[in-house]
Amino acid sequence: MALEERVEAAIAAAVGFGLGPDAPPRLAQALPYAVTPGGARIRPTILLSVAIACGDDRPGLSNAAAAALELIHCASLVHDDLPSFDDADIRRGKPTIHKAFNEPLAVLTGDSLIILAFDVLARAAEDAPGRGLGLIRTLAKRSGMPDGICAGQGWESEPTVNLSAYHRSKTGALFIAATCMGAQAAGQEPEPWVELGSRIGEAFQVADDLRDALYDAETLGKPAGQDTVHARPSAVTELGVPGAIRRLRDILSGAIASIPSCPGEAMLADMVRAYAERMTPVAPAAATSPMRARA
Amino acid sequence: MALEERVEAAIAAAVGFGLGPDAPPRLAQALPYAVTPGGARIRPTILLSVAIACGDDRPGLSNAAAAALELIHCASLVHDDLPSFDDADIRRGKPTIHKAFNEPLAVLTGDSLIILAFDVLARAAEDAPGRGLGLIRTLAKRSGMPDGICAGQGWESEPTVNLSAYHRSKTGALFIAATCMGAQAAGQEPEPWVELGSRIGEAFQVADDLRDALYDAETLGKPAGQDTVHARPSAVTELGVPGAIRRLRDILSGAIASIPSCPGEAMLADMVRAYAERMTPVAPAAATSPMRARA
Repeated sequence: MALEERVEAAIAAAVGFGLGPDAPPRLAQALPYAVTPGGARIRPTILLSVAIACGDDRPGLSNAAAAALELIHCASLVHDDLPSFDDADIRRGKPTIHKAFNEPLAVLTGDSLIILAFDVLARAAEDAPGRGLGLIRTLAKRSGMPDGICAGQGWESEPTVNLSAYHRSKTGALFIAATCMGAQAAGQEPEPWVELGSRIGEAFQVADDLRDALYDAETLGKPAGQDTVHARPSAVTELGVPGAIRRLRDILSGAIASIPSCPGEAMLADMVRAYAERMTPVAPAAATSPMRARA
Repeated sequence: MALEERVEAAIAAAVGFGLGPDAPPRLAQALPYAVTPGGARIRPTILLSVAIACGDDRPGLSNAAAAALELIHCASLVHDDLPSFDDADIRRGKPTIHKAFNEPLAVLTGDSLIILAFDVLARAAEDAPGRGLGLIRTLAKRSGMPDGICAGQGWESEPTVNLSAYHRSKTGALFIAATCMGAQAAGQEPEPWVELGSRIGEAFQVADDLRDALYDAETLGKPAGQDTVHARPSAVTELGVPGAIRRLRDILSGAIASIPSCPGEAMLADMVRAYAERMTPVAPAAATSPMRARA
């Protein structure tokens, strides 16, 4: 499908900027390793869908924005998998970076991908520097402190957690970045797109909680039951499986209702509906069995 | 002194952008902890000196550039001190971040400071977006892969090391960023300023090798003899102490000769001479005693 190919080409081009003849070879291997194979590439796909819905008059800038967002997402996964965080051995069906390479290279891979994300945006913005700076500010706001995914991960080191701030920053932030940056790449203001990103982010959080509770490690491509292991808040613990599925559907209806008026409004509604079907877990046996207890 | 105050005010303002009412409190404490007290603030001081020498017609942008550069430097120190890297307990006379807080917060502090650096530049560049994007590209090039400090740290995970690439990226890169970004903040092209930054970086590498070999931990504010412990290349091992001191003076003469023609040329030459005096270690007893053996 054209959109998928466009996302992969943009990511490959972006990672290419991080490679060169004088680079340390193992770190240079780790960068493409960390971004392939992709998961669903859902954030850059949403970003490009919004950009297209808004006219996509600078496709090169949209591609850079999509790649930059995915690089930040991959960086956060690499750091989140580290022994001092989730201590995960497997990610997307293959060894995590600190297992396949080593721990310093995992830290440096994350750092390099973060830096590369901003570089990719700055490179693509020469002809539209105002839009470029806007994209960089949105990406920074949704990635760093005090409101981005770094803040979200930071809540996991707190004795008491502000749950709404935690979810908004840990999962929601990059979905908000996806919708806002898609609009900005096409020359629109980002603010009207915050709500759509926020609701899609909430939906993914609930879907992720459901998957973590219902699926095994092989299906997930990463360890299962991690919410229980790490005593993380979960919609499944709060609402049970059927309640969490109802909540997921309500959030997605709200997401469709929040789409700002734009030429591609109907196409975006279809996209959210398609995600809704893909996100709702099908696991009837597990869904009716008693849930794992939580601390 | 005015320049010192200007640097500290710029850094404090930049870190302030990373704090907010919904931020996780411990990570919010770790950000200012990681950037204070400063060391000599040598990179932002060089940056502002070059900006002033070039006219400094946008002092707000110069301040943002100085702060952004120091945030990246501090981020690299926090990650370099991690247990899987240098495993340092003390930095600038106080516990390192992973000791004072914990290891996840040390990783996230570094990540947050990197992101904040780009955010600070984008915020300050609204009235001069072209300059802002140029500054962001220079900072990214000298921080990340394939040529920046991430690359330099990456060489420490290689079985065989390209020594010139290692030194150029690990130590030289942020000094090159300092001179180039100072010029760019004042509207000048960066390329003519690469050589000055590169030579100052080489001088600091030799001075650092001398300090590591000659001084004790109390004087350094961090563990001494780390080059030997980690079997890192060192000018002292290669040339001996008197040879390394001669080399330091030669490099600084070359640095002065390389200063591009600009209104503040003489002032910059004085600055380099002042650094030369401060950098040359005074340790006569140690200097004549046998050096530690290296693996």
